[in-house]
Amino acid sequence: MRHRIAAVSAAALLTLAGATGIAEAQPAGLYAPSAVVLTVGQGEDAATAVRAVTVSCAPTAQGTHPDPKAACAALAATSGTLDALLAAPDSHRACPMHYAPVTVTADGVWQGSRISWKHTFANACTMSATLNGNAVFAF
Amino acid sequence: MRHRIAAVSAAALLTLAGATGIAEAQPAGLYAPSAVVLTVGQGEDAATAVRAVTVSCAPTAQGTHPDPKAACAALAATSGTLDALLAAPDSHRACPMHYAPVTVTADGVWQGSRISWKHTFANACTMSATLNGNAVFAF
Repeated sequence: MRHRIAAVSAAALLTLAGATGIAEAQPAGLYAPSAVVLTVGQGEDAATAVRAVTVSCAPTAQGTHPDPKAACAALAATSGTLDALLAAPDSHRACPMHYAPVTVTADGVWQGSRISWKHTFANACTMSATLNGNAVFAF
Repeated sequence: MRHRIAAVSAAALLTLAGATGIAEAQPAGLYAPSAVVLTVGQGEDAATAVRAVTVSCAPTAQGTHPDPKAACAALAATSGTLDALLAAPDSHRACPMHYAPVTVTADGVWQGSRISWKHTFANACTMSATLNGNAVFAF
């Protein structure tokens, strides 16, 4: 019943928006959108992505990410501040010090706010040890 | 048969990558990735997105865009230069001159290369007349 009222209100707002020429042609929905492109690329800049997946988290978790549900949960745990992904490295791992950089990016919208995040790891081992099994870049 | 050979080669490369410590933990796949987040927001900046969808175009068209196939075809027609979306306005439409800006963005990866595109229309009518039925922002 509550849903029905909400739907009617959205329709009413839409009509109003149409009448007054307000920007949106369609209702914004009842949830803030979360839609992110995640990439992994070789090198220091993010110009070329070797792998890229999408994940959309509302109203349901979906996307080309192999586990959108886990990725959405992991993104939610960062509250949109993706540096949080770097905060729990696996302290039991040691990585060689060679430099073969891997750059990961996250761009899009998290709960209605734009996110644009990039991080370069010294090499793939460092990336793996730092992310420590986090689902976001597990693709 | 060809697929099987390709798969074996990928596995061989992967082993090699593992042995030499090259960056990628997984093969890049046989196609360049295309994964884009599209947003529509009110105002001149893109900080807040009212609507956001994902579209992924390879190997198949999918995403939360209501018509991923049409969106991928329309994106392909731009060859990654999204200003092309502005090049075919509906010359039969007239729009009021009031300023109620709508900003659209496209961020992500198109055929392996990063794209980050933003355009602000003076108002929703201008947006609709300019995009002229193009599928990319029809959500």
